Amino acid sequence: MKKRIFILSLVTLFLVSCKKSEPATSTAESKQTQTEANGDPLPSWNDGALKKDIIAYVEKVTKEGSPDFIPTESRIATFDNDGTLWAEKPYVQELFAFYRVKKMVEAKPELAQKQPFKAVIEKDKTFFEKGGDKALIELVAATHTGMNEDEFETSVNDFFKSAQYPGKNIPVKQIRYQPQLELLNYLRANGFKTYIVTGGTIEVVRAISQDFYGIPKDQVVGTSFKYKYDAAKNAVQREAALDHFNDKEGKPVGIQLHIGQRPVFACGNEGGAGDIAMLTYSQGNKYPSFQLLVNHNDSIREYKYQEKDNASLNAAAKNKWHVVDMQKDWKKVFAE
Amino acid sequence: MKKRIFILSLVTLFLVSCKKSEPATSTAESKQTQTEANGDPLPSWNDGALKKDIIAYVEKVTKEGSPDFIPTESRIATFDNDGTLWAEKPYVQELFAFYRVKKMVEAKPELAQKQPFKAVIEKDKTFFEKGGDKALIELVAATHTGMNEDEFETSVNDFFKSAQYPGKNIPVKQIRYQPQLELLNYLRANGFKTYIVTGGTIEVVRAISQDFYGIPKDQVVGTSFKYKYDAAKNAVQREAALDHFNDKEGKPVGIQLHIGQRPVFACGNEGGAGDIAMLTYSQGNKYPSFQLLVNHNDSIREYKYQEKDNASLNAAAKNKWHVVDMQKDWKKVFAE
Repeated sequence: MKKRIFILSLVTLFLVSCKKSEPATSTAESKQTQTEANGDPLPSWNDGALKKDIIAYVEKVTKEGSPDFIPTESRIATFDNDGTLWAEKPYVQELFAFYRVKKMVEAKPELAQKQPFKAVIEKDKTFFEKGGDKALIELVAATHTGMNEDEFETSVNDFFKSAQYPGKNIPVKQIRYQPQLELLNYLRANGFKTYIVTGGTIEVVRAISQDFYGIPKDQVVGTSFKYKYDAAKNAVQREAALDHFNDKEGKPVGIQLHIGQRPVFACGNEGGAGDIAMLTYSQGNKYPSFQLLVNHNDSIREYKYQEKDNASLNAAAKNKWHVVDMQKDWKKVFAE
Repeated sequence: MKKRIFILSLVTLFLVSCKKSEPATSTAESKQTQTEANGDPLPSWNDGALKKDIIAYVEKVTKEGSPDFIPTESRIATFDNDGTLWAEKPYVQELFAFYRVKKMVEAKPELAQKQPFKAVIEKDKTFFEKGGDKALIELVAATHTGMNEDEFETSVNDFFKSAQYPGKNIPVKQIRYQPQLELLNYLRANGFKTYIVTGGTIEVVRAISQDFYGIPKDQVVGTSFKYKYDAAKNAVQREAALDHFNDKEGKPVGIQLHIGQRPVFACGNEGGAGDIAMLTYSQGNKYPSFQLLVNHNDSIREYKYQEKDNASLNAAAKNKWHVVDMQKDWKKVFAE
């Protein structure tokens, strides 16, 4: 069941990557950006109701003696990654899978004649459309597992050293959203512990979480494979089977396992309905909580895409979550 | 397989609890204790080679510019809990299981006539000896699962409010080892992030980790059950199946999943051979590392027990790990 969802999501990944990315104009906005030194903790957020609400919430729950006060150890803030902290058209995870295919074929050229490597090398999307689950399981297993954690970490680090974002021709680091980096810093400055809760695989995100977001490896919750300790090699081996798929209803489960308490602040995005369960779960907190959903409605500066059934925005309206109107709320989109 | 080990360990738990505990004389040592204000970071450790080695290691790896320097984000210190941070004769986890049985029988008296509750109430150890795995699976399932995380947390908190340690008649908090509390503080003061990596179930330890050890919930790695998000109740349900058994070779796996990197400082104890894999794994770190093994050789102040095959102490000798000779190295054993 879990495997099936993962695979379907990978099919989407692959198909999305075959569409041409829309142009970005992130530099055009940079002149408007104020620095945090000016006393504004969120300089890349336009003044308005949402920015006011975020600041009012943080002030309310950190004021000692207030009935809304949240003790430091329960100031848990969780952020989705793809589409919430950085762009997701295409997913970086997918770029990594293709990078791995390329590297593996370089090391062993005969793989280029073997599926699913051949299809990736030849950009043959019909192979994956026709092959469905089986072909994609093979791709993920071949590129993400069958090695130990030390080897995998080296390969992820190598990928990020030179990874460029398609369509934009900028380093992957520059697809981070500047307003969100400020929000992470603002929350941390107010005693919140910030976490990434991603549908992506945990070790890929951990490779950059500290450098890109100031979030330590152990504060990343994500999709994980089965591990096995190999005593002979004194290493943890990655096995070709999913252990936990950390998307949708998997997110509260991942949060319980890794964090052990409900977040008071949860932020996700519309696009794949992946964060509805996490935001709902956060809202069940005994402390006052804040839910934030990024709406991708900015075709000029970022991308514009909606869910067919509008599930995330409908849930936001129903549950009174705060929605980031990217066009109106963000003065600047991308980090430099 | 995992289940079997867990159950065997529970059988041991139960049998151990039926033995009479040896007397404790923790108060007798309190006069010798210096405060940390005197400038000694480890006042309850006797001066000697081990204390000197610990301090030399910490100074060496935190000295900027030194070839042994470890960046802050990799200063990961992992501690086993039972027998390493607090006493394990009997396990606190076991006291909790018996507490749950009592509470469940109070709420539903007819359970007292039903196994495995009847055997616990009547202290019938032959029931568990004869019933083996099946009886103990029933006991764990009945006491630790079948509720959601909010309900479980309430029940663990209630237990710790009044839990007394058998044989000693002191609150459970007082079975913590004072020298280890100082070691945790000393490591943290030097930029180490401290974790508990326990064979016990994760939520039971999380309930006291901050208060007892200054370790936040999300820095506890432990044995976990399967969870499922219940959308109707907006809660995470605990299912009657083990997900991960965090003992022996399960510890490096739990560390990879929760922490994402090898510890540089790892501390366990001899008694059940539970920490050999964790200490070995730590020793495979690319940075200089430190392994510490508590030897329970103090029948007067704590307990004296050894593994039949001496596996942990043999591994310590072979791999040059540091061994805490509790009799000689600890000026004081228990916290007040």
